[in-house]
Order: sequence, then C-alpha cells, then structure tokens
Amino acid sequence: MSQAALDTLVWNDDGLLPVIAQNHVTGEILMFAWMNREALRETVERGEAVYWSRSRQRLWHKGESSGHTQKVYEVRVDCDRDVILLKVEQMGGIACHTGRASCFFNRLEEGDWKVVTPVLKNPSDIYG
Amino acid sequence: MSQAALDTLVWNDDGLLPVIAQNHVTGEILMFAWMNREALRETVERGEAVYWSRSRQRLWHKGESSGHTQKVYEVRVDCDRDVILLKVEQMGGIACHTGRASCFFNRLEEGDWKVVTPVLKNPSDIYG
Repeated sequence: MSQAALDTLVWNDDGLLPVIAQNHVTGEILMFAWMNREALRETVERGEAVYWSRSRQRLWHKGESSGHTQKVYEVRVDCDRDVILLKVEQMGGIACHTGRASCFFNRLEEGDWKVVTPVLKNPSDIYG
Repeated sequence: MSQAALDTLVWNDDGLLPVIAQNHVTGEILMFAWMNREALRETVERGEAVYWSRSRQRLWHKGESSGHTQKVYEVRVDCDRDVILLKVEQMGGIACHTGRASCFFNRLEEGDWKVVTPVLKNPSDIYG
C-alpha cells in the first residue's frame, strides 16, 4: 500500500491501531487485535493478517504456530481513520487460542457471562 | 448486570474497554467505540448502547442528538475479557456521523483508500 495511505491513518500514542477481524462471508467477528504500520504493510503485501503483539512486542503473523492463518479479502478503515476492519477467511475455522471459531464466546445472560460456543479443537493439539 | 460480571472484565489503564457494534441480523460492523464501567452498566439497564466519549469525557447515549439509538440484543466479551461486542439494531439505519450505515466505509483498493458506501442522510439534517 502507498505511504500516503499509511500516513492518512491516525495511529495512537504507541503507533498502533485496533483491528477487527471478521469472516468475509458470514460476518462473524473472529477476533480483535492491534497493528503498527509495519504489520499493516505486511498484511497487505502477504494477503494474510499480520498483527502487532503487545504482550510479545513483535510482529505476529497470525497462524504462525497453529497454521490458522487469515486470508485477507478486504481492508477497511473507519470514518475517524483510527480503526481497521479486515474481512478474512479463517484457515482451519479457528481464530481463538482456546480452540473456538471466534474469540467472542462469552455472552451476557441474566447478568453473568456464559460460554456459548464450543471448543472445536483442543489447544494442546493446536499448539503442541 | 452483576458486580462480579463487571469485575471479571479487564479494563485498561483509563478504565475503558473497546466496543464493537454489529448489526444483529446482517453481521455488518457498524462502529467502534469505548465504554467505562458505568457505560456498560447503563447499556445493559437501558437495553440501548451507552458509550464513553473520550473526546467529550462523558457518557454518550448513542443517538441522543440524532435519534439513531442502538437497541442491544446481545452483549459478548472476548477470551481475554478486554473487548466488548454488542449485537444491535441500528435505529434509523445510520450509525455513522457522516450519515452512512456504517463507519467502515473506506476500503483499500490498489493501495489507496476509496469510499465505497453512500451517504444516506445529510449530517446537517441529522444534527441540525
């Protein structure tokens, strides 16, 4: 992507933008993460999601350990140019490190959080 | 919602969580905003989205000026308990202050951002 397209984005004080990853067909929201400029540039070049891991302080090519990469179909930015939306195909059908399709598996029910989606694969089989 | 359900969330250093608002039927992502504890409690009590406006530093009942409130059907939290997902019905069909259905109207095309969705209503007619 062009330098101008990167420069027009409103990066936060840490040089990051929040990123939402969404299934490009069903619209299911898969996960939420962060990107720096390099991560976004790499995402566009590879056609696969590359995030910035805040905990590990390094680029994180999603699926590098698990094989569960995300093929990017569309990149969008919001009206304030400070949030990225990726429309992706989730390889392996599992975005979450818990082995679920999506990270958003806790639903508020009668005032408390309930797990509402199943584990599709044991994490020890994904990362072992 | 219960105090325990609020306490189990991982609020950031400013006492906030990022929030994704999604159309509860189509899956379209409408906007991205922030909540503090009071905003989330009010959202659940009212059944309508209440955010924390970082620019105005106050609670922001979405639609308070425009009438474009968001009726909340579902509240979810992710695996790390630090991102909220709201599944909503967007009253008036317009979530964005630009008069568009969604805030995510800029798509990366051949390296540059292009506007890909129409203005449904002139902002001066929404807020005038």
